[in-house]
Amino acid sequence: MSIKDRLRGYSHEVEEALRGLLKGKGIPAGLREAMEYSLLAGGKRLRPVLCLCFARMLGAEARAAMPFAASLEFIHTYSLIHDDLPAMDDDDLRRGRPSNHKVFGEAMAILAGDGLLTEAFGLMASTAGELPPGRVVEAIATLARAAGAGGMVGGQALDMAYTAKAGVSLEELREMQAMKTGALITAACVCGAQLAGAEPDVLARARSYGQSVGAAFQIVDDVLDVVGDEKALGKPVGSDEEQGKTTYPALIGVERSMDLARRNAAQAVESLSPFQGPEATFLRDLAQFIVDRVS
Amino acid sequence: MSIKDRLRGYSHEVEEALRGLLKGKGIPAGLREAMEYSLLAGGKRLRPVLCLCFARMLGAEARAAMPFAASLEFIHTYSLIHDDLPAMDDDDLRRGRPSNHKVFGEAMAILAGDGLLTEAFGLMASTAGELPPGRVVEAIATLARAAGAGGMVGGQALDMAYTAKAGVSLEELREMQAMKTGALITAACVCGAQLAGAEPDVLARARSYGQSVGAAFQIVDDVLDVVGDEKALGKPVGSDEEQGKTTYPALIGVERSMDLARRNAAQAVESLSPFQGPEATFLRDLAQFIVDRVS
Repeated sequence: MSIKDRLRGYSHEVEEALRGLLKGKGIPAGLREAMEYSLLAGGKRLRPVLCLCFARMLGAEARAAMPFAASLEFIHTYSLIHDDLPAMDDDDLRRGRPSNHKVFGEAMAILAGDGLLTEAFGLMASTAGELPPGRVVEAIATLARAAGAGGMVGGQALDMAYTAKAGVSLEELREMQAMKTGALITAACVCGAQLAGAEPDVLARARSYGQSVGAAFQIVDDVLDVVGDEKALGKPVGSDEEQGKTTYPALIGVERSMDLARRNAAQAVESLSPFQGPEATFLRDLAQFIVDRVS
Repeated sequence: MSIKDRLRGYSHEVEEALRGLLKGKGIPAGLREAMEYSLLAGGKRLRPVLCLCFARMLGAEARAAMPFAASLEFIHTYSLIHDDLPAMDDDDLRRGRPSNHKVFGEAMAILAGDGLLTEAFGLMASTAGELPPGRVVEAIATLARAAGAGGMVGGQALDMAYTAKAGVSLEELREMQAMKTGALITAACVCGAQLAGAEPDVLARARSYGQSVGAAFQIVDDVLDVVGDEKALGKPVGSDEEQGKTTYPALIGVERSMDLARRNAAQAVESLSPFQGPEATFLRDLAQFIVDRVS
């Protein structure tokens, strides 16, 4: 089966789980509608899939880990809703549909994000019925650190500061993206391993894979923003800078950006060298697939 | 010692703990400043104090429970920052100072709230080093439910819907306030008991105390908004309704509102009947103090 088909299969499992997770919680109807509008808007479900694959690869039962994996999509979705707000990036569209606040208003969009973030931690805690509480609480700590003010939220604050500033360096861009998008992707891998009770050396490999895949993913995203999906690599760059955002291609050009993405993907594959089985193969192929999207 | 002095003593302990909790987490300076501006703006620290007192009364060590107790103030603070936003209640002042977004801008205020909420769960998870992970994860589940879309966030959504609507009933008001402010106060008591490993019957007493104290607190707050602090009870009411908010005094008058608050305080005291020692006495006196504020 192609990597695309395998990814679609895993995404589908997550999708099914997401559908039921806001039911029976006493959520006011209007709020639940706003939360589901963004949560069920599709997408690759990359973070839950990474979490599940690491958990499975290292011996945990997928069914037991699923609510924890789903919580990663809750957190990712909340961050998109809040990032799209007029006071933030002011985006009217998300995944081809009107963004949350365009449909439900700003107040409800803020609350939908707050609700998704809080429910995420409830989902994580709920897995302690089937998994050892010590593992669950460690994974919660990992995810809170990654999503919090020293991670994803801090990365968005830096992103906004850098958008207003001239002359962002490559090191600043790398650090900002590592916080804004890398931290949650890395935490997805590490949490999956923690839920499976992995030893420190295995956790370090999960972390290395996540950091490398996260960096590759973000660099390729930057490149696709500039050259456009499916287009050739030789085009002039810099158009995204007009919107005030510094990107890898704007700083070092498309060719060197893609070299960097490929080195990160290779590092990710290398991190998984001790592991075998369908999940290990999938994770290796996924790292390669991320950079193959541009070509 | 008077109840005021004892409350001040407990609040001071919490205050000391709050000061150090955002340090050394790699939070960008501007974001940390915005978070601390609201977190360290004073206040009674009622929710952490309740959590600590229940934990202590039932045999847990206060030092071990402190980060969990502090997380309640993180959550309360985030909710105030987001509620004050222009898209929400649009309040320029909070605790006598400019609200967060007036000082740091809307984007930073949204992120400061998101950061506080996420760090709160990190603090909760961090207590598993000293307390049994099974208890910690149960308390996390309690708090996520209380603060989430079926609790505090849902209550704020209802509050906004009711502000736009004529003819809110007493039952609707009661339910909305139970979600918006009652749920977190109740969770503070229940979490404290859970961290101490309390049995179900004791947890039920903690819940009953929290629900009664939370209701009394909110009713008295409504009354104070109408009659003004330290003023007599016989004044004309309804002024708060001009701002579109339905209150207890507007629906049933000041006298009946205060009767209801007193009955709730008595119920709270009754819930604690099996317990003795300084924390039990403090919690009983606190329930009484809440209604004595008006007189």
